[in-house]
Amino acid sequence: GMAAADVTLSGSGRFGIVYNSALDGAGQSKTKIEKRMTINVDGTGSTDTGLDFGGRIRLRSDEGDAASSAASANVWMGNDMFRITVGNTEGALVNRIGYFQGSIGLTGLHWANVSFNMGSASRFILNTYSSRGNAGDVVRLDFNVGGFGVSLSSDSTGDHLSNGSEDGIAISYNFGDWNVAAGFAKNANNSAVSATERDMFSLSAAGNIGDFGVGIQYSDLEDVASKVVLNGEYDFGQTTVAAFVAHTDEDTVGSAGIGAAGEETEYGIGFTHSLGGAVLAGGISRNYTDETMADLGVRFNF
Amino acid sequence: GMAAADVTLSGSGRFGIVYNSALDGAGQSKTKIEKRMTINVDGTGSTDTGLDFGGRIRLRSDEGDAASSAASANVWMGNDMFRITVGNTEGALVNRIGYFQGSIGLTGLHWANVSFNMGSASRFILNTYSSRGNAGDVVRLDFNVGGFGVSLSSDSTGDHLSNGSEDGIAISYNFGDWNVAAGFAKNANNSAVSATERDMFSLSAAGNIGDFGVGIQYSDLEDVASKVVLNGEYDFGQTTVAAFVAHTDEDTVGSAGIGAAGEETEYGIGFTHSLGGAVLAGGISRNYTDETMADLGVRFNF
Amino acid sequence: GMAAADVTLSGSGRFGIVYNSALDGAGQSKTKIEKRMTINVDGTGSTDTGLDFGGRIRLRSDEGDAASSAASANVWMGNDMFRITVGNTEGALVNRIGYFQGSIGLTGLHWANVSFNMGSASRFILNTYSSRGNAGDVVRLDFNVGGFGVSLSSDSTGDHLSNGSEDGIAISYNFGDWNVAAGFAKNANNSAVSATERDMFSLSAAGNIGDFGVGIQYSDLEDVASKVVLNGEYDFGQTTVAAFVAHTDEDTVGSAGIGAAGEETEYGIGFTHSLGGAVLAGGISRNYTDETMADLGVRFNF
Repeated sequence: GMAAADVTLSGSGRFGIVYNSALDGAGQSKTKIEKRMTINVDGTGSTDTGLDFGGRIRLRSDEGDAASSAASANVWMGNDMFRITVGNTEGALVNRIGYFQGSIGLTGLHWANVSFNMGSASRFILNTYSSRGNAGDVVRLDFNVGGFGVSLSSDSTGDHLSNGSEDGIAISYNFGDWNVAAGFAKNANNSAVSATERDMFSLSAAGNIGDFGVGIQYSDLEDVASKVVLNGEYDFGQTTVAAFVAHTDEDTVGSAGIGAAGEETEYGIGFTHSLGGAVLAGGISRNYTDETMADLGVRFNF
Repeated sequence: GMAAADVTLSGSGRFGIVYNSALDGAGQSKTKIEKRMTINVDGTGSTDTGLDFGGRIRLRSDEGDAASSAASANVWMGNDMFRITVGNTEGALVNRIGYFQGSIGLTGLHWANVSFNMGSASRFILNTYSSRGNAGDVVRLDFNVGGFGVSLSSDSTGDHLSNGSEDGIAISYNFGDWNVAAGFAKNANNSAVSATERDMFSLSAAGNIGDFGVGIQYSDLEDVASKVVLNGEYDFGQTTVAAFVAHTDEDTVGSAGIGAAGEETEYGIGFTHSLGGAVLAGGISRNYTDETMADLGVRFNF
Repeated sequence: GMAAADVTLSGSGRFGIVYNSALDGAGQSKTKIEKRMTINVDGTGSTDTGLDFGGRIRLRSDEGDAASSAASANVWMGNDMFRITVGNTEGALVNRIGYFQGSIGLTGLHWANVSFNMGSASRFILNTYSSRGNAGDVVRLDFNVGGFGVSLSSDSTGDHLSNGSEDGIAISYNFGDWNVAAGFAKNANNSAVSATERDMFSLSAAGNIGDFGVGIQYSDLEDVASKVVLNGEYDFGQTTVAAFVAHTDEDTVGSAGIGAAGEETEYGIGFTHSLGGAVLAGGISRNYTDETMADLGVRFNF
């Protein structure tokens, strides 16, 4: 029989206002207008023998952009138990671990809830799908049996160079409303020199206790810092309130760029309110430099 | 109930030949081949409570391009009476005023029919949707009641900078086959320095007298020039003939870059002929430097 | 009646591994991961009078890309007998001649099977549709009557410059399972100076003898070299095996950058195996520098 295949479009939009207390210099404005549009172009199909395959190209436009971006693609093949994904895609850790638990507001603000973001030294260093560019030529293998899953990944695979690569392994387990995950990335900072390689270890757990959702994450980046994040959310009717608190400990004072104390607490709170097809969202967060960000706006999917 | 949302594609193409008498230097050719393809990617949806929302990314390819462009997006939300649009979109004036009345030919040629185009000093300075880039992070509010409409807009909103912005207001009124509109833009030239800000005032009217369509526009750019444009068109069967005449008066001789006389008349004439799903189009125009452009070709929508 | 028009999406993906013996320097790796995704955005329609029209923009992402590319568009109009295509499209020769007969493997490897690729001096110099950029503003006319076809093309048409252009003519004839074609390109190397213009002549034939497919191509580039390519393929069940052998003769020793001998033989062999909706493909090829490439992977359409 003939195999099925199709290209489909989906996406989302959002707009609102963002405040950032850090932008208080001459000629600067603490507020700006936020705008984002995303279009996903997804090709999918399956073989007669039951293998699924596909690929994605994402178009993305943010405020301030001179043009929309078209992210590098990922392509994949597999079935319920095994999948290989190649290209612009999450590494093993970001695929399994709940790093984005506790994300708040319209835009995520400081993204201080992400445990691999530590001070100024470690910002989104793990292989993460790029909506505008390329995560870095990742190859990731996913295995899933029952609620148990394992992912393996390596990056920097798409050129004829023997350069440094982030190599990761992560496992996850789902049971009822709960998920736990752990992972290890060798050379998480993608250093070309082995002496300056930094390994990362992370774990996360999340679940529901009655009407409350709760989560915890922990990451440790070798010789830099460790960070723990607690988050919770509560739904009442059309409105959800979410909050997090995060604490970073530098391995040595200044190793993560935090400053004198060598440790810092960050926190944030936000809400979403359903408009029945669109969402009103907002939040406020405080980061390791004691600066404040806040946002408010609407987002919608199509 | 579940809200509706979808992503749809539409677009257009054209090709033909363009003549420009100005390109007569060594190694130049007065003619070239014209080619354009446009694809609109539109996400749209609506909430349970009757608010519509959406966004657009446009792909565009012209002759001579090394690649197709993806314009920055706009996103919007509203209903029949009120809408907010954020991003790459027309400012208030371009949204309400009939600046493009009297456009001729396959390509628009010199665009001398646009009253805000005055000599060399003022070319498309107002916030206008960019098919390849970004109008400049515009926020526009539109209000419509009966045939009456008001738009407000500001640009340069998408960054944390307190830079110069074009701030505009425009009103329009539709009655039967007629439309009248007027608008004012503060700092139409988007100057960062208040001393060199130039305000613009424009008005337009258009309608039908029997089988004739007629229009008038007027724009005044502070300290530069004013321009009035008259246009008309007549349909006979599958063919439409359109023409315009425009007159620019410099505020001081040379203030718009016209030259010695301080005033200039521009004009053009064109036609379209329906092929029943595609259109044959052509035209000829003469600009303020007494150069001639002409074009001929086909265009079609999909 | 209303004319029909639509925008449709289609595409393909592939991934695998590529080996290249040439990349054996310090810090280099002979292997890399291959990844490609292609999306075609096709607008099409027809007039009441039976003329078809359309246009294409292609999105493309390969391994190593910082972002996906959007190729420059082509637009076209015509019917069964005549068509004009303008923009990023094949020239007359590439449109008619079987240059890609004998392509092997997942990726094409050295593309040594393409008769216009001669040594290092001539690599893809003919106007060829670019999946990432622009073939060079081509205008091509195609005429088809019965099995007989003629194409004419010129490039560099999209600017107001009197620069060098490749001007080509090619003819083809189909009878049963067989196709023969021949073509001539003036200034195939697109030189701006007439003294260094190089003309190219090519011919090809291909067809089936029982379960065997066979083909031959020949190209001669003035003052550079000539190249002949023989290819064959055989289907057994879900598997196809394909191979080619190519021989290049330099006009003078070194004129094509081959080296001391002034002539070189290249060859390759590959296979595809149907997975019922996807294809497993691989191959190995040896080029004029005696380097070896090999690949293996899967590809699929959607």
